[in-house]
Amino acid sequence: MNTRSVVASLGVRERILETALDEFYASGFHGATMRNIANSAGCSAANVYNHFENKSELLVEILRRASDEQFTATRNALRKAGPHPVDRWRAAVVAHALFTARNPRACLVANSELRYLGEVDRKRVVGSRDAQEQLFVDIAEDGVEQGIFSVPHIHQAVTAVLTMCAGIPLWFRADGPLTAQEVADDFGVYALNLVGYRVS
Amino acid sequence: MNTRSVVASLGVRERILETALDEFYASGFHGATMRNIANSAGCSAANVYNHFENKSELLVEILRRASDEQFTATRNALRKAGPHPVDRWRAAVVAHALFTARNPRACLVANSELRYLGEVDRKRVVGSRDAQEQLFVDIAEDGVEQGIFSVPHIHQAVTAVLTMCAGIPLWFRADGPLTAQEVADDFGVYALNLVGYRVS
Repeated sequence: MNTRSVVASLGVRERILETALDEFYASGFHGATMRNIANSAGCSAANVYNHFENKSELLVEILRRASDEQFTATRNALRKAGPHPVDRWRAAVVAHALFTARNPRACLVANSELRYLGEVDRKRVVGSRDAQEQLFVDIAEDGVEQGIFSVPHIHQAVTAVLTMCAGIPLWFRADGPLTAQEVADDFGVYALNLVGYRVS
Repeated sequence: MNTRSVVASLGVRERILETALDEFYASGFHGATMRNIANSAGCSAANVYNHFENKSELLVEILRRASDEQFTATRNALRKAGPHPVDRWRAAVVAHALFTARNPRACLVANSELRYLGEVDRKRVVGSRDAQEQLFVDIAEDGVEQGIFSVPHIHQAVTAVLTMCAGIPLWFRADGPLTAQEVADDFGVYALNLVGYRVS
C-alpha cells in the first residue's frame, strides 16, 4: 500500500467506526447490521469486513476508544490538580462527567450494549474501565486515610459516582439550560458531597 | 369466557411478560422476536399477538409495571418515614435502590431499551417515571427550604441520585459480599451526603 492508500484506508476505518456508533445507538447491538453500517459509511460490506471481523469487533473498538479517551481526559485533569484529595477528586469527576456529557452516544452504548459482548471481548473493554475506576479508588482511599472523606465502602462509593456520571446522557441536552461544563462542575460538587466532604 | 379460561388466559399473559423481559434483556429490543418470546412462553406467536399488538406494546407494559411497582415501594416506605426531610429522603432512596437491586433486569432494560420506543409509547412509560421523580423532588425541595439540604440544582441532584441507583444492576450481584438491603442502606447514606447533609 502506498501512503495515499494507507491514508484513504484509515479514513474509511474511522468512517466505519463513526457510522457503527450511530447504528449501535439507533438499533442496539443485536439490531445493528454490518450492511447498514457499510451503507452509511459509503462502502461495501466486504470493505467493513476488511477492517473488522464482525460486529463484536466493531463494538469492542468503539467502547475501548471511548474508554481510553475518557481515561486520558481524567488523567490530564489530575496532572493539573495538585496533591490534595479534594482537588483531585473534584478534578477527576468533573473531567469524567464532562467527557460523558460531550460523548453521550458512546457512553450510552457502552452501558447498554456491553452485556451483549462475549466474555473475552467484554474483558477487553472492561480492563480499560477498571483502570479508570482505580484512579478514582486511589483518590478516595487517600481522602479516607487523611480523614477528609468518609464512606461506607470506597469501591461502592466510586461506582455510585461513576454510574451517576454515566447517567448524564440519559437526560442532558446540549441545547438545554446548562452547558456540559456547568453540569460537570455540579457533578464535582455532588461527588465531593457523596464521599462525605461538605463543599462550603 | 368462563372463569377457568380467564385464569388460564391471565396465566399466559403473565408468562409472556416474564419471557419477554428475558428476551429483551438477552437480545435487546431490536434483537428480540415475538417468535422467541412465544417459544419461551410455551405458546404460539398468534397467542402472543392476542395479548400484545407488537414488541413495543410488550416493552411498554413491562416498563410501566416495573416503574409502577417501584413507585409503590417508594410510597409505602414514605408512609412509614414521618415528616422529616432527612428520614423521608433516606427512606425513599433506600426503597428505590432496594427495588433496583432486586429487579435488576427490568431496571436495566428500562434504561437501555427505552430509547427504542416511539414518542407516544415512550411518553406512556416516562409519565410513571416522572411521577416517581416528583416524589424525590418534593422531599429535596422541602429539605432545601428548611436549610437541611444544599445543592446546586434540585432536579439535577434528584436525577443524579436516581441514575446512581439505576446503575446498581450494572455491578450488584445477589451472591456478592453485600445483600441488596445493605447496598440500599449504603445508597441512602450516599444520597443524604449528596444533597449536602452530613450523615454522622
